[in-house]
Amino acid sequence: MIPVAVIGKGGVGRAVVAALLRSQSRAQARGVNLFVNAIAGHDGIAVSREGWPEASLVKFAAGAGDWRDLTGVRVCTSHAELVAAIGAVTRPGQIVVDVSAAESAAWHLDWLRRGWHVVTANKKPLTASRESYEAIMAASRQVDGPRHRHEATCGAGLPIISTIADLLAAGDEIQEISAAASGTLGFVFSACQAGRTFAAAVAEAKLRGYTEPEPRDDLSGKDVARKALILARLLGWSMELSDIPVDDLVPKSLQSGSVENFLAGLPTASGYIDERVSAAAKNGQVLRYLATVGPAGITVGLREVPRESPLGGLAGTENMFVVRSRYYDSAPLVIRGPGAGATVTAVGILSDIFRIINL
Amino acid sequence: MIPVAVIGKGGVGRAVVAALLRSQSRAQARGVNLFVNAIAGHDGIAVSREGWPEASLVKFAAGAGDWRDLTGVRVCTSHAELVAAIGAVTRPGQIVVDVSAAESAAWHLDWLRRGWHVVTANKKPLTASRESYEAIMAASRQVDGPRHRHEATCGAGLPIISTIADLLAAGDEIQEISAAASGTLGFVFSACQAGRTFAAAVAEAKLRGYTEPEPRDDLSGKDVARKALILARLLGWSMELSDIPVDDLVPKSLQSGSVENFLAGLPTASGYIDERVSAAAKNGQVLRYLATVGPAGITVGLREVPRESPLGGLAGTENMFVVRSRYYDSAPLVIRGPGAGATVTAVGILSDIFRIINL
Repeated sequence: MIPVAVIGKGGVGRAVVAALLRSQSRAQARGVNLFVNAIAGHDGIAVSREGWPEASLVKFAAGAGDWRDLTGVRVCTSHAELVAAIGAVTRPGQIVVDVSAAESAAWHLDWLRRGWHVVTANKKPLTASRESYEAIMAASRQVDGPRHRHEATCGAGLPIISTIADLLAAGDEIQEISAAASGTLGFVFSACQAGRTFAAAVAEAKLRGYTEPEPRDDLSGKDVARKALILARLLGWSMELSDIPVDDLVPKSLQSGSVENFLAGLPTASGYIDERVSAAAKNGQVLRYLATVGPAGITVGLREVPRESPLGGLAGTENMFVVRSRYYDSAPLVIRGPGAGATVTAVGILSDIFRIINL
Repeated sequence: MIPVAVIGKGGVGRAVVAALLRSQSRAQARGVNLFVNAIAGHDGIAVSREGWPEASLVKFAAGAGDWRDLTGVRVCTSHAELVAAIGAVTRPGQIVVDVSAAESAAWHLDWLRRGWHVVTANKKPLTASRESYEAIMAASRQVDGPRHRHEATCGAGLPIISTIADLLAAGDEIQEISAAASGTLGFVFSACQAGRTFAAAVAEAKLRGYTEPEPRDDLSGKDVARKALILARLLGWSMELSDIPVDDLVPKSLQSGSVENFLAGLPTASGYIDERVSAAAKNGQVLRYLATVGPAGITVGLREVPRESPLGGLAGTENMFVVRSRYYDSAPLVIRGPGAGATVTAVGILSDIFRIINL
């Protein structure tokens, strides 16, 4: 019986519960019983020592019910209360999955120190201060101690973090990682390439649920900068988020104000981006929002790439990570595929869980 | 102290020892001490309870010395003697790495039943009878029991097996895997595309060490068929190697005889392959040797693909694996990179070891 607490009850949290349910028979065939013992939102938590009936979880996972329909609901207004609630139903091997958008670095450290494994899709705890990152990694480094894993923070379900970590552990030296790491911006610039204006592409991405509720979080490039910082820290570089120059695609005049006003103002304020798309097209180029972690430092921004190149061939929410290293010298290691979406993000979470329990 | 026995002392065995040496400081920082307690050839084994001095292993890894230079050498002419030799120096957590080309299915089962973990780059034990495959997998399925892992059997160090296994474990349904899975045949047809004759390309591949000592092992397609069978069995399909129709590139007249006679006869006997290359080029196509594991069964053979397609863009020894699934529905998951070579094969071996010890 290995209990999993899910912190965050949005689309990804539901997809994690769904994937855990689907993984159950395979895990049980190996003598492992994974079950959910806690589901937390920002205003409370439901806990159960034995887990809930499958039907209740299926309903939650399908989005048909609210987490408050589960038994064992407690109101939590602080991290201490959340921890006490999980602590009341925990068992050895407890795994805590963070799919929230909270600034949770201190929480992660606290959970690890309690002996709980931590799996996160939330980038914020890994992109806070270097000191807190080092403290989290050190807590995860004890033999037979709890593990901190974060595959889903880059490329969702694509195996980026574990592959780079394995190369480093095998003594490889990474020379450069270049990446189209934003499903949202990938979608936007594929749409521009197909003839949409930037404003129309952003509106469509918002409509399809590909952006954050606040679409400027994506367009500011900060999400990509966080991914680049996570990769750089994995390589052992000491940097802070504020050290990374970021190409902000939010027009200056629309940096503040409501989301509605932002979307309404975008068509008249973003003509310069449409001009860059047209200018690139005249040279057989397309625009991609790229991150590069390499000898020259970290760069994050809009770049022209040949339409016929691998990066130029990306469509929709596809991500691509290109790793050049001492071992991969004749040609790089490339991983490509949809890098956004609740279901594939849940795959990244599950693969971390399987690694922790050695399934 | 986690001991690793390396069965096979060729280029990959040496690269595994080199990678283990390079991984040591990182592993020790996590409280894990990986060390080599046995190195076996086909005619004997060297064993050491405490491991050898680093200088001796560095010399062996560099190919500068023979494994018989190590202390603790014993002549072994049977599997029973090999097992007794390892058994005399084993400790809890023993990992046995099979980088031999032996028909070792029965050995793997025996090792697992002794409680030893098994990591293999050798495809043969996984492509023997379905019964032996099932027995190996069942032995690896016990909770807290030994693990059998085989990442390096497909794509060398590329994370193919673990990614597909994680998808399956998370409840995904794989619809199709298509792959350019032979570094050797990739090199040969890239060279043909650049204007070489098939015979000249094979001779060059042999010269560069990309082929097996017997190049017909590669050209027969059997190596690719084994990889396809390993993928199919991972998906839960019950098949035997003999069920897979394979496109054999060895001219009928050269199926038997010495390697020298084969290479001497190839220029006059393989003109029909050069004609296929030319015919494809006239239509903007190139030839690739592909495996497909899908609803229509397994196919292994030479196919025309557009020069401008992702598969057409492969160069040298690059592999590409394309996974279409229920979760990866809008676009496939694609992993690409050098899929042959001792160093990257060692990465696959090491990543399995790290997974076993949960590093």
